[in-house]
Amino acid sequence: MQNSTVKDKIDDMERILIKDTPNKVGKKVKLLGWVSNYRDHGKMVFIDLRDRSGLVQIVGDKKLSDLRSEFVVEIEGLVKKRPDKMVNDKISTGTIEIELKKVKVLSKAAELPFDMGMELKVQLPTLLDFRPLTLRHPTQVAIFQTQEKIAESFRNYLKNQGFTEIFCPTVTATATEGGAELFKIDYFNNEAFLAQSPQFYKQIGVGVFERVFTLAHAYRAEPSLTTRHLTEYIGLDVEMGFIKNWQEVYQTADKLLKFIFSELKKIKPKIDSLRGKGGEMLIPDTADETPVLKLREAQEIIFQRTKRDNRQEPDLQPADEEEICKWAKEEKNSDLVIITHYPTKKRPMYTYPDPQDPEFTYSFDILGMGVEWVTGGQRINDYQQLYDSIKNRGYNPENFSFYLQAFKYGMPPEGGFCLGLERITQHVLGLENVRQSSLFPRDLSRVDIKLAQIKNASKKKTK
Amino acid sequence: MQNSTVKDKIDDMERILIKDTPNKVGKKVKLLGWVSNYRDHGKMVFIDLRDRSGLVQIVGDKKLSDLRSEFVVEIEGLVKKRPDKMVNDKISTGTIEIELKKVKVLSKAAELPFDMGMELKVQLPTLLDFRPLTLRHPTQVAIFQTQEKIAESFRNYLKNQGFTEIFCPTVTATATEGGAELFKIDYFNNEAFLAQSPQFYKQIGVGVFERVFTLAHAYRAEPSLTTRHLTEYIGLDVEMGFIKNWQEVYQTADKLLKFIFSELKKIKPKIDSLRGKGGEMLIPDTADETPVLKLREAQEIIFQRTKRDNRQEPDLQPADEEEICKWAKEEKNSDLVIITHYPTKKRPMYTYPDPQDPEFTYSFDILGMGVEWVTGGQRINDYQQLYDSIKNRGYNPENFSFYLQAFKYGMPPEGGFCLGLERITQHVLGLENVRQSSLFPRDLSRVDIKLAQIKNASKKKTK
Repeated sequence: MQNSTVKDKIDDMERILIKDTPNKVGKKVKLLGWVSNYRDHGKMVFIDLRDRSGLVQIVGDKKLSDLRSEFVVEIEGLVKKRPDKMVNDKISTGTIEIELKKVKVLSKAAELPFDMGMELKVQLPTLLDFRPLTLRHPTQVAIFQTQEKIAESFRNYLKNQGFTEIFCPTVTATATEGGAELFKIDYFNNEAFLAQSPQFYKQIGVGVFERVFTLAHAYRAEPSLTTRHLTEYIGLDVEMGFIKNWQEVYQTADKLLKFIFSELKKIKPKIDSLRGKGGEMLIPDTADETPVLKLREAQEIIFQRTKRDNRQEPDLQPADEEEICKWAKEEKNSDLVIITHYPTKKRPMYTYPDPQDPEFTYSFDILGMGVEWVTGGQRINDYQQLYDSIKNRGYNPENFSFYLQAFKYGMPPEGGFCLGLERITQHVLGLENVRQSSLFPRDLSRVDIKLAQIKNASKKKTK
Repeated sequence: MQNSTVKDKIDDMERILIKDTPNKVGKKVKLLGWVSNYRDHGKMVFIDLRDRSGLVQIVGDKKLSDLRSEFVVEIEGLVKKRPDKMVNDKISTGTIEIELKKVKVLSKAAELPFDMGMELKVQLPTLLDFRPLTLRHPTQVAIFQTQEKIAESFRNYLKNQGFTEIFCPTVTATATEGGAELFKIDYFNNEAFLAQSPQFYKQIGVGVFERVFTLAHAYRAEPSLTTRHLTEYIGLDVEMGFIKNWQEVYQTADKLLKFIFSELKKIKPKIDSLRGKGGEMLIPDTADETPVLKLREAQEIIFQRTKRDNRQEPDLQPADEEEICKWAKEEKNSDLVIITHYPTKKRPMYTYPDPQDPEFTYSFDILGMGVEWVTGGQRINDYQQLYDSIKNRGYNPENFSFYLQAFKYGMPPEGGFCLGLERITQHVLGLENVRQSSLFPRDLSRVDIKLAQIKNASKKKTK
């Protein structure tokens, strides 16, 4: 058997992670990682070694001279306490350094196209052109560790509340939210589309599990380049049945957001590199009771405060969103504010109309610090009412027959909401462009590489 | 403010879940759920009420007569202990029943197209045509609770081992595993494809986080209908750097599988409805050391046992997979067996060739009870070697320039593997068709509804 016949050539010493080196003062350790920084002072050579847990300084001699940035190495060395005045506060291993004993190169690297030092000073197109490289920078790593934490807290909160995680398909036969901005797929010579949201599936899921959530890929064929849109993004989608009243929907969203914030606060020290640039995480201050305003109430407040009269508009403009968030902070000591009752015409056909004023809906957005964090509402759960609503919007209910089954066979009062994973990441880290909070962002002109390149490459195909 | 002005009309009593009713003997309770079964015995009417936690019997009178299957109701009643001889072992609430006090219909349901009683006796096309309804059957619910548990155990195991969860895009510019069976997307008049796997992204992720996993949608334009293929499925994908040797890759997969099995054993009681049909979960028996065989060794064993000579074949046929699993059970007391060293020609261009015999690779499959559970291997991490491998397969390395950056700038020895979420679900529950283990399965002829229907519906579009 292979297990016994193939002899493994492993050094006896076990690798330890860089974050654990400060506990090993006076001990010999084995480390694995990438050369993150390289400083040759003649007789003395310094490198910063990087692994998944952090950075540490290696001090050596000529043996380190052949190394270059991003070389992958195995290091053996002695952990030594630094003199007090040499302590580096910017890294968590700043109290120690490693005196080199042995080094082995596991993989070489080409010369870098730009400096990957303490600050990564490249423009967005370069950041994305060299994504497999630039993602390795500690600031970038911190972004996606934050993102992972958001997803994890989202799941943990909902699982504790009796929600079931479901997996929704992305290839669909119908347009969910209306017909615009759909990507078409050539599906065995039939037409299919990339899902705009998992909306129909999570609602069907309520009929099965009562309370569901899903991390769903969603697609928008947005034909313009903005700092706020991706053509593919991850929706953190929630849907819940047997709601006592429609307020329970936004109250759940509000509690979920607050839980995510509290979890993010725990990892604060981990994103040293972002804070090092002067920015704390931008986690909203929340009040015990997040203020709730109807759209028309919000517009009236904005008018009173600014004399800008948008009181008949169907939505809040960016400047209005900022203003109402200012109001919430000043008057209610809350960075978050919940706006409800958007006009029926501006919300999808499944949105529940307010019985007392059917031109407005049981819908809401949660705004924070000038931008939108969550959108949701109660849904129509009566079959005939939903059927009529589809028809009244000019769609053919036959095209929605699969979805409509969920209501034909008995659906409790229900509602739900959605958070964009990349947007939440962007907001809490104060990133300028949502592309910075997607590992591999897609837009009108880029699918990893720029689309012009794709065209040229396919022309040159050898096979 | 709306919060204070809108009066909520909620009954004072809090709803409890059905699973908690056995602890409330002698108490009045409020329950919410669906009518799952309805039996009218004249003066006495019995219904089985279903919520997300289980089933319970309600005993009532004429007040229940207007109810029908799948009506959504609010029930108030008294929890009463059943006489010993009336205890129903098949449901977890079988020791009690609820004496009806009040009932309120929250939502009606149309007449069901088939019986949704204790056993759901419909053929696969009907099961899928009526998916929003059939998913509500307790057997179906159990399938997807099992699936959720598989995904959860997968994540938990890997997070504990220092892996980072990443989110990979599904819209891609190049074919990962070769050019066949790709779905094309009309991407702003450019060509893009649905990802066949997150392979490139998880490998890039190793350069960033060392150890990554992702739950990724993967697509295969499989132009045939089999019981084993979906056109869209969820890959449980893992990739790890700084491996000590290539064996560490399959050893990690083996340990992960065993962890998932141990977690699944804990939920066994939850899938009463499946076991009620005579089937325990089909969780493989594992040995402390899962046997490991090279493909050629396995083929020799099969030849010795059966005189079937497939010793020169590049892969195991289904009958061979069954035979080698029998061998593992008989000789090593293990339902699992790891087969390694598949031929270089049959594995993707990134697979690491065995330096001692480069016609074979450091690749593996984990087989169990006759079928494949995991596939993986070590990858080529040297830039030039990977570049040459791409070229030697007849591809243009230019088309892989984005992916190749990860190796150009230093990549440690690494490997990984993939489990299909639906396949694992199928295997542990002994389902005949993989479609049964996908909430909304897609194939050549179905995207929720049959594709012929899609064509007809679009012709009839009103708008």
